[in-house]
Amino acid sequence: MINTQDFKSIFPTGVKNDAYAKYFVGQSYLNMLTTTGVGIGNVTFEPGCRNNWHIHHKGGQILLVTAGRGYYQEWGQPARELHPGDVVNIPPEVKHWHGAAPDSWFAHLAVEVPAEGASNEWLEAVSDEDYAKLK
Amino acid sequence: MINTQDFKSIFPTGVKNDAYAKYFVGQSYLNMLTTTGVGIGNVTFEPGCRNNWHIHHKGGQILLVTAGRGYYQEWGQPARELHPGDVVNIPPEVKHWHGAAPDSWFAHLAVEVPAEGASNEWLEAVSDEDYAKLK
Repeated sequence: MINTQDFKSIFPTGVKNDAYAKYFVGQSYLNMLTTTGVGIGNVTFEPGCRNNWHIHHKGGQILLVTAGRGYYQEWGQPARELHPGDVVNIPPEVKHWHGAAPDSWFAHLAVEVPAEGASNEWLEAVSDEDYAKLK
Repeated sequence: MINTQDFKSIFPTGVKNDAYAKYFVGQSYLNMLTTTGVGIGNVTFEPGCRNNWHIHHKGGQILLVTAGRGYYQEWGQPARELHPGDVVNIPPEVKHWHGAAPDSWFAHLAVEVPAEGASNEWLEAVSDEDYAKLK
């Protein structure tokens, strides 16, 4: 479990998220808490780490923020700053990204909304230029 | 939000769980975090509070423990003590209860596993005698 003065994660951090590393900028960690019934993973981002723009097809995803400070942004919209206790309901077919603030670790649970034929489409990285605009 | 020296809840506590009060011993609080895609509620139990024995038909339920100390017990099995970071995957059709320890507040997220025709069957209370056997 990762602990710093300002960041204490409740759920075990798990291992380096190597399987999805190509879809992230920076280091993330993934711990699947359950894969039965509803898939729920604990995702932890080091400061500055974020995933690429991506789309959940058919089923969406629900983020439950448990620690740190981060962002969620939908394509064409301003980024939403996230703190522990925040909930994001990501609809299917919406292009978006999520990740840590530049100066903070960040952790959320990701709940996969089940749907027949659900899939993820990974797109381009969030550019350093766009990311640098965030506070 | 309820805070004591030993209990700090991440997700908002919400309101007194009046709708389900008849299925609980003691005071609980319910805050539905989302009802779109997958229903997720934040359930908070005062010390000694527990729900009645019950069964989730068709779809099960996943508990994600966020604060305090409590229990999960399946019919005919010893109770499992729960702490922050613990995950319980409750299969459908299994009679069980969950709730706080006698001396601690307790909070978990409850994730409803979607299923066609899902329903809950509420049964008898956990007796004071059985509950008193727990440490």
